[in-house]
Amino acid sequence: MARRAVVLLSGGMDSAVCLRVAQRDGFEPWTLSFDYGQRHRAELAAAEAVATACGVPAAHRRVLGLGHVFSGSALTGDRAVALDRAAEEIGADIPATYVPARNIVFLALATAFAEPLGATDLFIGVNTLDYSGYPDCRPTFIAAFTEAVRLGTVGGVSIHTPLAELDKAGIVRLGLSLDVPFAQTLTCYLGSRPACGRCDACQLRRRGFAAAGCADPIAYAQAEP
Amino acid sequence: MARRAVVLLSGGMDSAVCLRVAQRDGFEPWTLSFDYGQRHRAELAAAEAVATACGVPAAHRRVLGLGHVFSGSALTGDRAVALDRAAEEIGADIPATYVPARNIVFLALATAFAEPLGATDLFIGVNTLDYSGYPDCRPTFIAAFTEAVRLGTVGGVSIHTPLAELDKAGIVRLGLSLDVPFAQTLTCYLGSRPACGRCDACQLRRRGFAAAGCADPIAYAQAEP
Repeated sequence: MARRAVVLLSGGMDSAVCLRVAQRDGFEPWTLSFDYGQRHRAELAAAEAVATACGVPAAHRRVLGLGHVFSGSALTGDRAVALDRAAEEIGADIPATYVPARNIVFLALATAFAEPLGATDLFIGVNTLDYSGYPDCRPTFIAAFTEAVRLGTVGGVSIHTPLAELDKAGIVRLGLSLDVPFAQTLTCYLGSRPACGRCDACQLRRRGFAAAGCADPIAYAQAEP
Repeated sequence: MARRAVVLLSGGMDSAVCLRVAQRDGFEPWTLSFDYGQRHRAELAAAEAVATACGVPAAHRRVLGLGHVFSGSALTGDRAVALDRAAEEIGADIPATYVPARNIVFLALATAFAEPLGATDLFIGVNTLDYSGYPDCRPTFIAAFTEAVRLGTVGGVSIHTPLAELDKAGIVRLGLSLDVPFAQTLTCYLGSRPACGRCDACQLRRRGFAAAGCADPIAYAQAEP
């Protein structure tokens, strides 16, 4: 039987690449997605589509509702908060899209999900661009969290961050080599299809595909700038 | 304005003592309780009663539903699992009531809850008796988790474990000195009132009150052995 691994699957392209890496490395992926009141529920539909395209059976997917766990971020809450809110409101160099302790919560829940499965491997798509601003994407955090889990559980976990040292173009190239269903992924902050093409996330994605020299299979409302 | 602190409140006596310690230390407590399918929903009612008795306003209390996050433990799940399940099934010296990664999840969610409140202090009622068996009650785990949070958030947190070095009698004595509403707390694994008086949790509680030389204000179905 293949070793099981828990893959945090958001519906974005990074976690889709992680899912394929887990499969490449011989793991049977069990996906974990979160419904935490994010504005774009479309993300969860994208996560489902990605899992389906990658052959993950429905029984191996879990969506956890985190209700109102998170607040105070531009990506959550009932009222839209301006995405361009000044970064200094929530700390120097921290983007306004920062969700309090998000990866701490996600990795903690992944650990709880993994244990009864007999899984000790977790995959999370943090990468270089993220940890320029989000403190819980940094390698030092991942290492410290791994140590806390080692001390706090029976078996510990290994946290795989296969995108940690890749830029967006590198992630695109890796994903193409692994047949990642990029057409199913959703990146746009507005959650729209076609994607807006203008938000920071769309721009980052487009630059990644351009730098990798490949066509992005999703549609954009606005032509390449 | 008093400094805010997040207190993990289960409805048991230990977390009730923690709540009073937080108040003694000058904090304004915001309580966080979890509904994670435990057999005794009565715990949540007890947590409410404790918070009320301690003067915590309803707006400062939060109950998070964790649905089916946890499984594989005697304390959760739809089917009752025998409490005396052999410890070796889930690892040497780990009690059958161990919930996978429970404190990791609880502390992660407390961290997320704390940040928008501007709180950086968390109170959790882990103690000596717990960390004889539950890995995520050990001081080394608490220290490692604190370090992970420091690296993974903007402000970090201080995790207060005021019961860490107390036995049950010491917890009772501390609680009595702080007017803890022990009558509102619920300890019995069966979640019943009167308490069964026979389960491990009831026996531990009774021995604690006896060793402290005080009467336990709750009723037991079975007289003192």
